[in-house]
Amino acid sequence: MRGRGTAAAVVSAVVIGFIAGAGASGARDQRKVLMETDRDFDLATASNGAEGWTSYFAEDGIMMPAGGEIVAGKKAIRELMESRLAAPGYSLRWEPIDADVSEDLGYTYGVSKLSRTGQDGKPEVSYGKYVTIWKKQDDRSWKVAVDIGNSSPPPRRSR
Amino acid sequence: MRGRGTAAAVVSAVVIGFIAGAGASGARDQRKVLMETDRDFDLATASNGAEGWTSYFAEDGIMMPAGGEIVAGKKAIRELMESRLAAPGYSLRWEPIDADVSEDLGYTYGVSKLSRTGQDGKPEVSYGKYVTIWKKQDDRSWKVAVDIGNSSPPPRRSR
Repeated sequence: MRGRGTAAAVVSAVVIGFIAGAGASGARDQRKVLMETDRDFDLATASNGAEGWTSYFAEDGIMMPAGGEIVAGKKAIRELMESRLAAPGYSLRWEPIDADVSEDLGYTYGVSKLSRTGQDGKPEVSYGKYVTIWKKQDDRSWKVAVDIGNSSPPPRRSR
Repeated sequence: MRGRGTAAAVVSAVVIGFIAGAGASGARDQRKVLMETDRDFDLATASNGAEGWTSYFAEDGIMMPAGGEIVAGKKAIRELMESRLAAPGYSLRWEPIDADVSEDLGYTYGVSKLSRTGQDGKPEVSYGKYVTIWKKQDDRSWKVAVDIGNSSPPPRRSR
């Protein structure tokens, strides 16, 4: 029994050690995956508008737009983005600064740039920042659980 | 060897099953912990101002205030909140709606109410919503990694 117990303990320790090790390196890999997924989210929205934007959300995802109510679910999120993207010259682009991840949950945060055509026909640009929370789905893809942003001053230029 | 291998496999399976089970019920418990911690964060800020606010942040935590730049680190966060709380009649209160957690990372989101005394001496109230990302620290306490909020319309009242 003692031999068996020792063997079992060693195997268990190895198994647990493997799980822990995979967790640590996996978190680094997953951080890169989230950064890349957020950049793809930006590109998909730039290319495909409300369709691209909405395709990155989880079914029960929520959007927390500045000045608006909390918007829950893909259908409502799509409608909101369709109305926004209908504005002349509307373009929303963003770039993640960093990400963190733990198992099935992660987030990215970064800076955004919103372009529109003003009522005088001239282009208007405003700046913002955002946090996107990502949740790993049953199919192992990452989808947006929550997205929130707010306004920022224009970036300072070096001379 | 076969007997040993089987015993080891059974022990490993039990150990992994235990870890997985603890993970599932632990996540539910941790969600409650985060909701409670966010409510305590609100109370600490209401009672102790910038000191209370800052005490809930991780050393490398960041704050993403509406209309402002990203503020990184407890010292800068404390200075920002001290200047805000110096405004007459300033009070920021909030209430979490929901939380999610996975291992060492979680978030809460909810609604907030900001009260100030206007330049005409009358009280001004504005509403908002927020996301707070929590990271488990080495001492197992949850601290704020990122805090972001934006404005909302006034809540609709039922008649």
